[in-house]
Amino acid sequence: MQNWDAFLWPYEQAVDELKVKFRGLRDGFITEDRHSPIEFVVGRVKTIESIKEKLDRRVIAPELIEQDMQDIAGIRIMSQFVDDIYDVVELIHNRNDMTVIEERDYIRNAKPSGYRSYHMVIEYKVFLPTGEKKILAEIQLRTLSMNFWATVEHSLNYKYNGEFPEKISARLKSTAEAAFQLDEAMSQIKDEVQEAQRFFHKDKGQNKDIE
Amino acid sequence: MQNWDAFLWPYEQAVDELKVKFRGLRDGFITEDRHSPIEFVVGRVKTIESIKEKLDRRVIAPELIEQDMQDIAGIRIMSQFVDDIYDVVELIHNRNDMTVIEERDYIRNAKPSGYRSYHMVIEYKVFLPTGEKKILAEIQLRTLSMNFWATVEHSLNYKYNGEFPEKISARLKSTAEAAFQLDEAMSQIKDEVQEAQRFFHKDKGQNKDIE
Amino acid sequence: MQNWDAFLWPYEQAVDELKVKFRGLRDGFITEDRHSPIEFVVGRVKTIESIKEKLDRRVIAPELIEQDMQDIAGIRIMSQFVDDIYDVVELIHNRNDMTVIEERDYIRNAKPSGYRSYHMVIEYKVFLPTGEKKILAEIQLRTLSMNFWATVEHSLNYKYNGEFPEKISARLKSTAEAAFQLDEAMSQIKDEVQEAQRFFHKDKGQNKDIE
Amino acid sequence: MQNWDAFLWPYEQAVDELKVKFRGLRDGFITEDRHSPIEFVVGRVKTIESIKEKLDRRVIAPELIEQDMQDIAGIRIMSQFVDDIYDVVELIHNRNDMTVIEERDYIRNAKPSGYRSYHMVIEYKVFLPTGEKKILAEIQLRTLSMNFWATVEHSLNYKYNGEFPEKISARLKSTAEAAFQLDEAMSQIKDEVQEAQRFFHKDKGQNKDIE
Repeated sequence: MQNWDAFLWPYEQAVDELKVKFRGLRDGFITEDRHSPIEFVVGRVKTIESIKEKLDRRVIAPELIEQDMQDIAGIRIMSQFVDDIYDVVELIHNRNDMTVIEERDYIRNAKPSGYRSYHMVIEYKVFLPTGEKKILAEIQLRTLSMNFWATVEHSLNYKYNGEFPEKISARLKSTAEAAFQLDEAMSQIKDEVQEAQRFFHKDKGQNKDIE
Repeated sequence: MQNWDAFLWPYEQAVDELKVKFRGLRDGFITEDRHSPIEFVVGRVKTIESIKEKLDRRVIAPELIEQDMQDIAGIRIMSQFVDDIYDVVELIHNRNDMTVIEERDYIRNAKPSGYRSYHMVIEYKVFLPTGEKKILAEIQLRTLSMNFWATVEHSLNYKYNGEFPEKISARLKSTAEAAFQLDEAMSQIKDEVQEAQRFFHKDKGQNKDIE
Repeated sequence: MQNWDAFLWPYEQAVDELKVKFRGLRDGFITEDRHSPIEFVVGRVKTIESIKEKLDRRVIAPELIEQDMQDIAGIRIMSQFVDDIYDVVELIHNRNDMTVIEERDYIRNAKPSGYRSYHMVIEYKVFLPTGEKKILAEIQLRTLSMNFWATVEHSLNYKYNGEFPEKISARLKSTAEAAFQLDEAMSQIKDEVQEAQRFFHKDKGQNKDIE
Repeated sequence: MQNWDAFLWPYEQAVDELKVKFRGLRDGFITEDRHSPIEFVVGRVKTIESIKEKLDRRVIAPELIEQDMQDIAGIRIMSQFVDDIYDVVELIHNRNDMTVIEERDYIRNAKPSGYRSYHMVIEYKVFLPTGEKKILAEIQLRTLSMNFWATVEHSLNYKYNGEFPEKISARLKSTAEAAFQLDEAMSQIKDEVQEAQRFFHKDKGQNKDIE
């Protein structure tokens, strides 16, 4: 790769545009006094080091990077309730400024580690000085609890390279269980909260919470 | 109040400066390859409607607003672990660009509702076109679980004005319990995660997570 | 109009997306070591008061606002050289995520007041919680000198409602003349600067200017 | 230097805080319906390459970088009128969250090249995870015309290393002259514009310009 900056720029542009689009969608729900299935949105572009390391590890020819590596551009969308995630999935399918290429439901089918999330790969068009370019981006959808757990697992996984000492493995599982229980408790109270949020936003300003 | 915009501007300025300062502190820990006790930071200025409503409700004379209403400027700091909160409290005490006026520990002494958070009131100096002005700001410190629960309670509280039907009250309590259990599980695994994060950041770039 | 916030939200969303797209385009040129025809980009949504005042003044039926008022969403793109503006105009015509509806060249045909700018009206699609919506946005393209003058004229115009005392009118014209002369002088030196910028960015980092 | 990221972080933090402070000051003037002497504010931290290059060129011992290199953190403040610059200089002297260490007036005493700007070096305190640290930052104050010219000169200077071919040198001087004339013309109309801005902001919203 001659010029990594020029290679990565379209991915950075895609991440910036997608963040603005999903954050805007959240504001759209709130403006219309509806519960937003999107709580917050973050994004990142894979680092050069990480791309190189993956190329080496998986023996990918450099000219195939762009088809093969689907997560150079990554967006993560956090939701309050598990059901919200499926609402966002549907919103993504229904818009024609991005095309869903692939999706995997690690919520209904959690990974053996306890990892839960919904993954989508989309195709998205950016406009360069030299014209348009289609790129792939990965969208991960999670509740706040799933994200909390995944952050912990990610730190540990990196250190132990997936082979956890038994004590840690046990604690990680009980944390996963606690995160799952919090999602379950939230689901029980979902209808009341959503109803209250509608009520709440109608009078917004009146009692606005810190945000 | 003649000019609410001019009244609120110093508070908006304080919130903007405090957000930059605490977010910067987080980056400082990460740059030094240390676990950051700050996960993310949000802030808001109370709305005019909310200030007026509180003035009416608590019979505060308008000229006493600024001494009496300590949360016109509000900052909320979220942490991964309960122990992190006390580290941030100490960092705030140790810096001389803000002065702690008051603090309440609703973590060790949770409210009857189940609400947990650490509250501080600080004095902070902003520089106006006409010179300096000292203002009060409230800082709320919470884990991600505490925040998750508080958001739910806030929505419901607003609708039911604190007098919950029994069914809702029970569900809210079991959600508070699930949130508390998640914090407990996290505390069990804290040392391993913090150790792993140090390890992780040393090689950062290598395997950078979405953020 | 029942709900102005909900009415204005799609325009705010369009402005946010267009700012990210044009700022990104600027970064694209710089990343490819080329002179960027875009220096900086700002945007705004017309205020409710301003929309109402225009409805009254021009006797527009409220249901026709969206077709009739083409500048509810406004983007302004500033360029270093006059020639850059025409390069940006072409880039806008060449991309298919926005459609040019109308354009006026007040650079080749300055207004009698001395006002110079290139105006385009585009159609742009935003995705709401309820589905997609096409909206109009105005793009104003200017050099930094044109913008400098226009800011001054805008302030004065507002006060005098377009009917300037003779002394002010004379000074405004001599300022317009000075702004035009600066653009002319810049055009003389354009090729050298563009060549130097290519050279400059090749070694960027080496001597990076404040920005 | 072992860890450049950790070395540069306090400077990045200072730049972020100073940008928020000066941008906030601008909003403060506007909120109080007064002409703002600050038009816009940018900032940057010197790149590692640029610091290294300067260390080599000026034979500075690495342990003396921080005292010797006063522009690692750089802030640039742009004003509409020449007089505004001196108002900002006074505001900076009057606030006690930064201390002026040195200042040079290249407006009254332009450099032979035609360069005009007001330079200040300040001492500013940032709070690290390990405690407070005083750092130096350079503030450059300019009108929009001065900045326009300086950008051009900077590009050319970098290519020709200060030794311009005669043709270019002549054009650069005539551009400097045009920039100076625009500032002069602006000064003639200053009182009317400032008066109009006061008038303008009183009714703001009514006719808000793109910004």
